[in-house]
Amino acid sequence: MKVFSDATVNDQALEQLRQGVAPHDLVRPQKLAASVLAKSEADPALCEAQVAFGQPDVEALAEAHHLRWLHLSSAGFTRYDTPEFRVFAAQRGLVVTNSSSVYAEACAEHAFAFLLAQARCLPQALQTRAASGTPEWLAVRQAGQSPRGQTAVLLGYGSIAAHLAKLLEPFDMKLIAMRRTPRGDEGMQTVTPAELSGALSQADHVFNLLPANAESQHFINAIRLTQMKRGAVFYNIGRGTTVDQVALDAALRSGQLAGAWLDVTEPEPLPDGHLLLNAPNCHITPHTAGGHRGEDGTLVWHFLTNFRRYLAGETLQDRIM
Amino acid sequence: MKVFSDATVNDQALEQLRQGVAPHDLVRPQKLAASVLAKSEADPALCEAQVAFGQPDVEALAEAHHLRWLHLSSAGFTRYDTPEFRVFAAQRGLVVTNSSSVYAEACAEHAFAFLLAQARCLPQALQTRAASGTPEWLAVRQAGQSPRGQTAVLLGYGSIAAHLAKLLEPFDMKLIAMRRTPRGDEGMQTVTPAELSGALSQADHVFNLLPANAESQHFINAIRLTQMKRGAVFYNIGRGTTVDQVALDAALRSGQLAGAWLDVTEPEPLPDGHLLLNAPNCHITPHTAGGHRGEDGTLVWHFLTNFRRYLAGETLQDRIM
Repeated sequence: MKVFSDATVNDQALEQLRQGVAPHDLVRPQKLAASVLAKSEADPALCEAQVAFGQPDVEALAEAHHLRWLHLSSAGFTRYDTPEFRVFAAQRGLVVTNSSSVYAEACAEHAFAFLLAQARCLPQALQTRAASGTPEWLAVRQAGQSPRGQTAVLLGYGSIAAHLAKLLEPFDMKLIAMRRTPRGDEGMQTVTPAELSGALSQADHVFNLLPANAESQHFINAIRLTQMKRGAVFYNIGRGTTVDQVALDAALRSGQLAGAWLDVTEPEPLPDGHLLLNAPNCHITPHTAGGHRGEDGTLVWHFLTNFRRYLAGETLQDRIM
Repeated sequence: MKVFSDATVNDQALEQLRQGVAPHDLVRPQKLAASVLAKSEADPALCEAQVAFGQPDVEALAEAHHLRWLHLSSAGFTRYDTPEFRVFAAQRGLVVTNSSSVYAEACAEHAFAFLLAQARCLPQALQTRAASGTPEWLAVRQAGQSPRGQTAVLLGYGSIAAHLAKLLEPFDMKLIAMRRTPRGDEGMQTVTPAELSGALSQADHVFNLLPANAESQHFINAIRLTQMKRGAVFYNIGRGTTVDQVALDAALRSGQLAGAWLDVTEPEPLPDGHLLLNAPNCHITPHTAGGHRGEDGTLVWHFLTNFRRYLAGETLQDRIM
């Protein structure tokens, strides 16, 4: 069996992949993508593979007649998340999984770090050398606010939300998840998008964990921002396209939002002079939420775990199609 | 009964204090200190009081012959923490309590925010707009490291340490407390200062929560910094005087420490050109760890809770002498 992989990993992780796949053949493309988030070029080696791991070109997949399983090296799968591709995968009997488990812990910790940095006013406190007792000092010192007992809305209930909920446990927060189809096993109050406005109006913190697709495009728009409680804080660990950034900027400038913490924007990075770069209390990290030391190794380990399940005919983890 | 208070609180909290003390008299000094951390001037009103709440002058207390209970409006009590004052308080039958419970939650959350900001490389990630796939981006993205399963040493086991341990629970960390006299009820491995070096050598994170006194002066010195594991991260939520800052600077520059997060320094704020202001990976907040919205109200509420216990002859909370 040939296993195609265009995943961009370091030499050590690649060797781990090659050994884990053996005695099957690991085939690599001629040209590698720049990162796990980038789209790679079509490659003839894909046509012979039964399994693919990485970010293969959507058009090239049409020619991959032997392919039975595609494992994406990212949590996001926008390029593949179209009605056309879903039909194509169903007709071919192609199983599609992603790497969301690889990034979920780091993403949840990133969101949590944002929440605590906001609670303790770290951006302001790390900037100032205000002396004890001065008005500037008092303003920073008395702006801190514990998340204990506060309310948070989690937009999108997947592995990040589940992990974040676990981290938040000691804070006794009220958590409300939004999910297209609540299943009742979320362990917290769960609402549909249609029921969201009531939840937004009581939330101190709104965590956006939505993937990018046609439905989520500008999901956070002027209307939903207005539905939020005045002084709420907005976090985006999902995808930049899910937010109307002009409306977000306006909400920050008017004080409707007390702050925004964004790991994703549209585009990435934001160009010089972009509105959000000067919006008040807007804090941006460059899509690093899922990253972690040894990430390449975790990525390969997660694929190989699924590969063993595939060989044994077991259910695959993180199946998305 | 007269209750003296020089505590610097806002009008609303002061009114709450006056009502809570009634029908007893609340007496205020003529001149107020600039903040809860500042030492106030001597005041004649203190001489008539049975209870004092705030930061009364140590010399003035010698003249306060009616005083039975002193409740400090801070967690730190350096000015009162001398053998002379302890003898004086014992001879007078003066009970001394502090406000550590008021600040413990915020201090623990501040320490926790530091830990997560370090884990997620927030200082670097918030500074850069590096594009996906560039070496600069990869460096930030792959530097994140989960605290899960890591080891932390807590220097000083009091209400901050206990609270911090609770917040860290979901991370399954190995926690080791250092305490002058371990009592066995700490809920974690606890060592004495003499046994500390072994703990330091295995810790990924060292949280300094020590108060300032003769024993803790430069407790973190070149020797203890060398005993730490290479690449450890040091946090100071205690007092600035407990650290030899020249040695700390050297440890940061040599890479012995991967980072330092300091809420306290000596002096505060550090003067222009101070070594630590340019030390690599050194992050400083201006003694804001204990602060929080409604702090004045919490402070008064905590005093009044103890005041009711005092009137009822019950054991006082946060007793230090």
